[in-house]
Amino acid sequence: MKIAIYGYGNLGRGVEAACAACPDMELVGIFTRRDPRSVQPLFKNTPVFSSSEVLSHKSEIDVLILCGGSATDLPAMTPELAKHFNVIDSFDTHASIPEHFAAVHSAAEESGHLALISAGWDPGLFSIARAYAGAILPGGQAYTFWGRGVSQGHSDAIRRIPGVKDARQYTVPIEAALESVRRGENPQLTTREKHLRECYVVLEEGADAVKIEQEIKTMPNYFADYDTSVHFISEEELLRNHAGIPHGGRVIYTGRSGKEQEHGHVIEYSLKLDSNPEFTASVLVAYARAVGRMHSRGTVGCITVLDVAPGDLSPRSAADLRKDLL
Amino acid sequence: MKIAIYGYGNLGRGVEAACAACPDMELVGIFTRRDPRSVQPLFKNTPVFSSSEVLSHKSEIDVLILCGGSATDLPAMTPELAKHFNVIDSFDTHASIPEHFAAVHSAAEESGHLALISAGWDPGLFSIARAYAGAILPGGQAYTFWGRGVSQGHSDAIRRIPGVKDARQYTVPIEAALESVRRGENPQLTTREKHLRECYVVLEEGADAVKIEQEIKTMPNYFADYDTSVHFISEEELLRNHAGIPHGGRVIYTGRSGKEQEHGHVIEYSLKLDSNPEFTASVLVAYARAVGRMHSRGTVGCITVLDVAPGDLSPRSAADLRKDLL
Repeated sequence: MKIAIYGYGNLGRGVEAACAACPDMELVGIFTRRDPRSVQPLFKNTPVFSSSEVLSHKSEIDVLILCGGSATDLPAMTPELAKHFNVIDSFDTHASIPEHFAAVHSAAEESGHLALISAGWDPGLFSIARAYAGAILPGGQAYTFWGRGVSQGHSDAIRRIPGVKDARQYTVPIEAALESVRRGENPQLTTREKHLRECYVVLEEGADAVKIEQEIKTMPNYFADYDTSVHFISEEELLRNHAGIPHGGRVIYTGRSGKEQEHGHVIEYSLKLDSNPEFTASVLVAYARAVGRMHSRGTVGCITVLDVAPGDLSPRSAADLRKDLL
Repeated sequence: MKIAIYGYGNLGRGVEAACAACPDMELVGIFTRRDPRSVQPLFKNTPVFSSSEVLSHKSEIDVLILCGGSATDLPAMTPELAKHFNVIDSFDTHASIPEHFAAVHSAAEESGHLALISAGWDPGLFSIARAYAGAILPGGQAYTFWGRGVSQGHSDAIRRIPGVKDARQYTVPIEAALESVRRGENPQLTTREKHLRECYVVLEEGADAVKIEQEIKTMPNYFADYDTSVHFISEEELLRNHAGIPHGGRVIYTGRSGKEQEHGHVIEYSLKLDSNPEFTASVLVAYARAVGRMHSRGTVGCITVLDVAPGDLSPRSAADLRKDLL
C-alpha cells in the first residue's frame, strides 16, 4: 500500500517512523507547506515535496495521511483533499466532529473516495472502548481520565504569560476518583475531583514567581477549575527531566447484568504512552491500511473508527488472525 | 430484532436477562433439549419450546443464540443450525477454532445465512484487544492474564477426587508478573510465574485432608505446573463466600515506536466481572445485533468478532455514536 504524509510536524514525523515499521507500506513522500529543501526527514531517503504539487502525485498514492492541526488546518484540508485522495485525519475538536464529518462525507462521496476522520486515541481508541462497553452493558457509565501526561495546550498557555521562559504542564488523574469508579460507585465527579494539573515553569531572569504562580492558578478554562501545583525549575532541569511528550489515560466503564441487575462489571482500557504524537501516528497508519482496503472493496464517503472492523487494521490474513488471536 | 435462545444453562439464562435490558430486542423464546415443562425461565412470560421444534419457528427468528458447550455441543450444533438460521456461538476451544470456522462457514454460505463464532471475552473481547494493539504497534508483545476468578474446569477437577464434597478454584494472576510486563521488560514467563491457583475445598466426613491436598497439588495439567494453595472450609462457608461465578482478566500489550524504536507504550484492557456467564451472554446479545444487521446488508458465511465494526454492536445510529463517543 502506498501512503503519503501531508504536513510534517511531530505527527508527520511519527507517521514516517510508523510507516517504516510496516513492511506492507510504502511511503511515497512527505508533502509540506514549507520550502521542501528546508525539511529534514527522519530517513534521508524519504522524498520531500511541496504541498502545492500533491495533485500531480495523485496516481501514486493509495491513502494520504493528513497531519495538520484541528484548529485551522483540517477543517479546510480534509474536505478539499478528499476530492482527490483517500484520506485520513486526526481531527480532535470533539464538538465539531459532526460538522467536519458532513463536509468530508459530501466531498469524498461525490468523488468516489474514502475518508476516515478523527483517528488517534481520544477520539479514536477511547471512542472504541466506550462503544464496545456501552453496547455490551447498556445503561452503564463511562468515565474517561487523561494522564499522567503532557498537555500541549496547557503548556502553551503558561508559556504565553510574560516572565515565563518555558513550561511543561502534566495532567494527572486523581487516584481516589479512579478507585471510586472502579468500585462501581458511579460517582458524580467535578472537574476538580477528576484531575490535577502539575506545572513545571522556567522563569525569565527577574520575573516575579509569586505573581506568575497566582496567574497560572487562576487562569480561566485552563487552571481555575483544578487543583494546580506550580514548580519553578531551571532550564537545565526542564530539558533533562521534561523533554518528552508522554501521555495516556483510561476509559473505565461500569455496568450491570442479571435479572435484577444484581451483578456489576468493570471494563477498563488504558494507555501509557512514552510519545503521544508517535503513538497517534501509529494509529493513523493502521487505519490508513483499513481505508485502502475498504476503498478497494467499494466503500466511499466518510467513516470513523467506529465503522472499521479490527481485522481490517492488520496486514495479516483473516485466517491467520483467527488462528492466533481468537 | 427477534432473537431466540438455543440451550438453557447459565449462559442461556444470561442471554435471557441481557435481552431484557435491550429495548430493540424481542426474545421469541427458549429452545431446550429438556422437557420444556421442566424449565423455569427467568421471566415467566418467556416462551419455552422443545429444541426439536426449532425449525417450525424459522420465520420468526432473526438470530439464534447458541448456548451449548464447546466440548461436544457446538461443534455439531453450530454448522447444523447455520443451515437454517443466522446463528452466534461462544465456541472457546482455541485450537479447534479454524476447523469449527470452516464447518460453519460452508453451512452458512451455502444456505445464505450469517454465523458468528467464538464471541465472548476470551476468545472475544480479549482477541479484539490483541488485534487492535498488534496492528497499531507491530512487533510488540501481548500478555494475557486471567482472574481473579472461578475456573469451572478446575473446580470440577477437584470435585472428582474421592472424599471431596464440593470445591471452588480461583485463578489468580501474579502481581510481580503483571508489573514486569507493564514496565515493558518483555519477560519470558513460565506457567508458574503467571498465575496462582487457590482452592476452597469442602471434605466429605472422614476424608483424609493431607492426602487430598497432595492429590490436588500434583494433578497433571490442572495444578502440577502451578503454585497451588488448598483451603479446607465448611460447606456453609463455601455457600456464603464462594457462591458467585466472578471472573475477569487482562490483556497487556507492550510495543515501541520511533525511528530507533526508542519509545515504549503499554496498552491494557481489563475486565472485572461479577458474573462470568452473564457478561459472556451480554457480549453474545450485542453481537447478535450485529449479525442481524450485517445479514440484512447481504453478508453471509462465517465471521468472528474481528470482522465486526464496533458501531454495528450498538442500537444507536451512527450519527448518534459519532456525536457522543468520538
